[in-house]
Amino acid sequence: MTTPGTAPVTAPVTTLTRDRGVTGPKGFKAAGVAAGIKESGALDLALVVNEGPGQAAAGVFTTNQVKAAPVLWSQQVLRERRLNAVVLNSGGANACTGQEGFQDTHATAEKVAEVLDIGAIEVAVCSTGLIGERLPMDRLKAGVDLAAGALAATDEAGLDAATAVMTTDTHPKQSWARHPDGWSVGGFVKGAGMLAPNMATMLSVITTDAVVDGDALDAALRATTAKTYDRLDVDGGTSTNDTVLVLASGASGIAPGAEDFVAVLTAVAADLVKQLQGDAEGVTKEISITVNGALTEADAVTVAKTVAEDNLVKTALFGSDPNWGRIAMAVGRSQATVDQHRLGIAINGVTLFTDGHRAADRSGADLSGRDVDIVIELNLGDGAATVLTTDLSHGYVEENSAYSS
Amino acid sequence: MTTPGTAPVTAPVTTLTRDRGVTGPKGFKAAGVAAGIKESGALDLALVVNEGPGQAAAGVFTTNQVKAAPVLWSQQVLRERRLNAVVLNSGGANACTGQEGFQDTHATAEKVAEVLDIGAIEVAVCSTGLIGERLPMDRLKAGVDLAAGALAATDEAGLDAATAVMTTDTHPKQSWARHPDGWSVGGFVKGAGMLAPNMATMLSVITTDAVVDGDALDAALRATTAKTYDRLDVDGGTSTNDTVLVLASGASGIAPGAEDFVAVLTAVAADLVKQLQGDAEGVTKEISITVNGALTEADAVTVAKTVAEDNLVKTALFGSDPNWGRIAMAVGRSQATVDQHRLGIAINGVTLFTDGHRAADRSGADLSGRDVDIVIELNLGDGAATVLTTDLSHGYVEENSAYSS
Repeated sequence: MTTPGTAPVTAPVTTLTRDRGVTGPKGFKAAGVAAGIKESGALDLALVVNEGPGQAAAGVFTTNQVKAAPVLWSQQVLRERRLNAVVLNSGGANACTGQEGFQDTHATAEKVAEVLDIGAIEVAVCSTGLIGERLPMDRLKAGVDLAAGALAATDEAGLDAATAVMTTDTHPKQSWARHPDGWSVGGFVKGAGMLAPNMATMLSVITTDAVVDGDALDAALRATTAKTYDRLDVDGGTSTNDTVLVLASGASGIAPGAEDFVAVLTAVAADLVKQLQGDAEGVTKEISITVNGALTEADAVTVAKTVAEDNLVKTALFGSDPNWGRIAMAVGRSQATVDQHRLGIAINGVTLFTDGHRAADRSGADLSGRDVDIVIELNLGDGAATVLTTDLSHGYVEENSAYSS
Repeated sequence: MTTPGTAPVTAPVTTLTRDRGVTGPKGFKAAGVAAGIKESGALDLALVVNEGPGQAAAGVFTTNQVKAAPVLWSQQVLRERRLNAVVLNSGGANACTGQEGFQDTHATAEKVAEVLDIGAIEVAVCSTGLIGERLPMDRLKAGVDLAAGALAATDEAGLDAATAVMTTDTHPKQSWARHPDGWSVGGFVKGAGMLAPNMATMLSVITTDAVVDGDALDAALRATTAKTYDRLDVDGGTSTNDTVLVLASGASGIAPGAEDFVAVLTAVAADLVKQLQGDAEGVTKEISITVNGALTEADAVTVAKTVAEDNLVKTALFGSDPNWGRIAMAVGRSQATVDQHRLGIAINGVTLFTDGHRAADRSGADLSGRDVDIVIELNLGDGAATVLTTDLSHGYVEENSAYSS
């Protein structure tokens, strides 16, 4: 199975574009409308409907022990590995809202079921926004009517859905990839802060017209998210609402091999994650942290995430300072096995530290650009992993201190 | 044994003042000089000498796997639980400097031993500053001569030593406490960033004229640091150089009971830690996070530290926003056992969330002041702990992006 870190797997993909999303694959309609949940009047309610003939679905959800009502609901309905529709709202996370909040989610699913003439158990619900506030259910239900009326299989409808889930995102994020055999995978994602998916980055819906059954879809989704969404870490903030759903219509009539399917799914997921990184709150640097030579892959991920979450590393990079000593400090405080006498660090292709010794003056590493590539050599084994992160800027502090979200 | 979190234990202490430090207890001399290690010409080399009659000593050191040369040296000499002197420099951490760096530390100890006519094995070494650079040994050795000539038992000499170890600290930090029986404990500490001691916050030297043997001193120090230095977490950045040393001269002739000794040692340590919190990089809020009702004390510490390190919580508090939803998110993503339906959160005395439900509008909690008191109720058991932290401000980002340290 080809799942090399977060790099897009382009081998079996002939087309990869950000101009299409969930309505790219055959058999799907979508809509995004302004239901008035957000006071700004922006789009805030999205609907994605699978018209079949197949209805296989799978989901992965936040590992946070404080789970929002829509996560609890969607986990429950996904046990059947079958979905007809997904309804998503921004403007409120419906997290920490108790039994009443769960009833609101249930009522939302019932409303969608009524309008589409399906069962509530076939409807997944996702919410995003401020934690701790109840949703305005009257507006939300009226919005479902509006969205049902706007459902379309067009690229524009897919983009509306991708737009309606945005919170502090500055632009909608879509990706669509087509396999040469004629089936495709498309999706959208939202998220800009509270980003350390484990599992899943805030909300993402992926569709495919490949013929895949529920169990295979579940296995493919888990293999994919472990190498993509799980390897983005902006601020360690695994959210209460993180959800990634994949729905398969089977409308292409083609049943791909498992390896090909995971490869295309990974290409789309990696492209969506790359867009999350690029639109993270306050981002001025898009940072890739690769750890090689760890005892295990899990150790490599642990080291990379410890460095990714380290505020001293993140602020140094914001200041374009190749301060590798802070990286060494973060590596050493990780829970993975590290030998400081074998440690090496390279930044943007320049080895600054090797085998526990300074190799070059840090001024040799040029950090003036937006992309920063950090490679950490542990020289202990074969474990390797790449984690994506961003810098810690005044913009991040400003966005997260001046506004509630 | 009385060790209630980080709160100063005042019971057996008649005097607690910040006007005296390591030279407060009898039997100690100190000095702080400008050796030219810092380009600024500020004080950068400190010496603390125990004139006895006793020479018991103990130390706790960073848990970081990347340990600076002076940490490796001091751990080695402390095996004897006996020290005659401590030499400390700012202006360079001597970390990630390989075998050459270790030889520099060894040469520093040898120089101090020569000047004081003692053995190098009786000399601990501490360094702080930028990681990855060699120390200017000629200047450092000349500085040792200068410091030896300046040694005095005065308050001024103690303050000079506390000043010479500063890096981004804005002021020296001392504390001294006297027991009614006539013995005392004094110390200094430095540290402003890379602060999540585990064990120890950057550098701290504590002295006492009580009669305590090496093993008892070691046990008392570990009991104390576990509840004080280990419960400050500014940015998760356990440093490569963290060191806390305690030296006992026995010059008072009084051998206190273990409980009294730990209580006074804790009072001094807690006061030093409080000063670290108040002078942390960019601090605008001094935040106390108390977790009650955890399954274990370890779980309580885990939850409190996860909240303390969470950038979304820290930026919200910088913005004086009682955004308890972010606290709930951080609690939920901790590795401790949590039940969201039993969770409660109070900020500055106002319960905002209780038993998984919103209890009051968050606007009811007043965060306009500098002190923020967060109490998290898990309602699962008897485990409790308090961790001190600070907010994440523009000042923190500015200090850590614009300057190398």
